[in-house]
Formats: sequence, structure tokens, C-alpha cells
Amino acid sequence: MPTTEALDRAEALITTIPDYPQEGVLFRDITPLLADPRALADVIAALSEPFDGQFDVVAGIEARGFILAGAVAIAAGVGLVPIRKAGKLPRPAASVAFSLEYGEAVIEIHDDIAPGTRVLLVDDVLATGGTLCAAHELVAAVGGEVVGTAVLMELEALGGRAIVGDVHTVFTA
Amino acid sequence: MPTTEALDRAEALITTIPDYPQEGVLFRDITPLLADPRALADVIAALSEPFDGQFDVVAGIEARGFILAGAVAIAAGVGLVPIRKAGKLPRPAASVAFSLEYGEAVIEIHDDIAPGTRVLLVDDVLATGGTLCAAHELVAAVGGEVVGTAVLMELEALGGRAIVGDVHTVFTA
Repeated sequence: MPTTEALDRAEALITTIPDYPQEGVLFRDITPLLADPRALADVIAALSEPFDGQFDVVAGIEARGFILAGAVAIAAGVGLVPIRKAGKLPRPAASVAFSLEYGEAVIEIHDDIAPGTRVLLVDDVLATGGTLCAAHELVAAVGGEVVGTAVLMELEALGGRAIVGDVHTVFTA
Repeated sequence: MPTTEALDRAEALITTIPDYPQEGVLFRDITPLLADPRALADVIAALSEPFDGQFDVVAGIEARGFILAGAVAIAAGVGLVPIRKAGKLPRPAASVAFSLEYGEAVIEIHDDIAPGTRVLLVDDVLATGGTLCAAHELVAAVGGEVVGTAVLMELEALGGRAIVGDVHTVFTA
């Protein structure tokens, strides 16, 4: 695992943007962290190392979750299954509708995992938990077993943890 | 570099979906390849190895490009700058409008790279080349230097190579 100092350094690169994408929302912009090679490597290690050897595939949630999931998949030597917004996958095997911090959405998954496959869910932010709950449902619907949920940043005030259950988060705001 | 046999094996996992997302379009579905750990590792190596040591950061294009770019960034030990659809980045430093194989779009970038930074552009498919040309413009607009363009699959009939210029592609269809 990266040191506390390394993770503090990475966290300091996250920028808070007030009133984006709408008034009253504090948006956490992780892009300066992603652009920094050391910070990126450190957070990818911190995201996935608690689950080392325990998952067969990473499920990444569109869109920022794709970046982290691609990185975790290569670092761990496993494959990746994308969870996408409705209408983006040509052969959706399952669809789930849910509420977001701002708005509503439907996400979908292909059935490219064998029954019983151990899945690590990866996303950038845990807000209200709606997306991650829907993602859990999707993985279960195609026969996968969610063995862990790894999220870069938890927005504690939004209470998502109470809904999603056991979530490993690297940063909390 | 992966062997020809390894890349043939990976390529065989790409599925062709007729008339998606609209009639007359042959959609290349790379998700079964991504889900396979060996194929994913092989194509990430094949994508980036020609540029080993020549780039400081990967620019990944939303959304499928994010998966490949995240993987390349971790494998190469560099950072990642996302190129996103309009309205998704909180502090866009440059925007470029362009035509797609089906439709129109605007993409944007942050200014998280220092002037002169060597950038490897990564995306999944080279179709008409509109997205990649716009991505070149974006990187130049924020002072970066595109040292290479790496794409998983080229759709030769759409002629994108003539517009984008020098592109490294792993597969051709």
C-alpha cells in the first residue's frame, strides 16, 4: 500500500469546484490527480490492493470509472467489463434505472462474464450510492458475484455508504 | 510486443454488430476482448510499446478511450488527461467541434499539462478521423505536443488515416 504521505499528496491534487454542474453542488475534480503519474499510480494501488487475488474481473462504471477500472485491470492482470449509460452497449443483457445526486439514469451491462465470476466494482465517487447499487444489481443479473466495491472518493454528507453497504474508499470529503 | 498469435486471439474476440447504432453501420464491439485478461494485456502492450519512453502523459478520449488510456497510463507509469464531451469538464481550457461517423460533437480538455509535455493520444476506433483530429487540436491548444496516436482498431473504409496522418493501430477492419 502507498504511504499516508503519498496518499495525502495525491488527495491535495483534487480540486473542489463550487456550483458545478449546478448551484449548490460541490464538484470534486480528480483530473489534476489523474494527470500526475505518481499520484495516479498511488491511488490505483490504494484502490485495488485490499482485494488482491480476490477478483477475476473489474466492472468499471462510465465514464470516469472507466479510467480507474482500466488502470486497476492492467495492474491486477484481470479483464474489464464496462457498465454503461443506456443506449451505449449493442447487446445489453440487463438494465437498471436509478436516481443520481442530480438527475436520473439507466445503466446497462453485457453478459461477458461467466456465472460465479468474482467482480470488483470500481468508480470514482460515492455520492448518494444510487449508481453503485444499480451496478451491484447489474452484476448479479448476469450471474457475477460482487466481491468488493472500490471508490476513489466518498462524499460522506450524501450518505451513500448506508445504501451501498461495504465500500472501500481511498479519500473522504 | 505480443506475438502475432496472441494478437490474432485477441482480435477474434471483437464482435461485429450489424446496423448499430443505426442502419448501415457495422459496429465493432470490443467488450469481449476487454473482459479477457490475456487479450486486454496483449492489446495494451501492442498499443503503447511502440511509444515506450517517448511520452509523458496519455490523453484518453471519452468514453471507451478512457478504458484503454487508464490501462496504458498505469502500464507506462505516466499520468492521464481526459478529453471529454462538452459539458463534462468543470474548467475547460479548449473546445473543438467536429463531425462523427454518425452525428456531431464537441470535445474539451483541461489545461493540466505543462507546455511542451509529450502526449500520446489513445482511443478505441479510428473511423472518419474527426475525433482524433479534434483531439490533436485540443492538445495543441493547451500547449502539449502530440508525439503519437494509438488506436485499437482502424475502420479502413472510412478513410480516417488520410485525415489524421500518422496513426498506430493494432487491428484493421
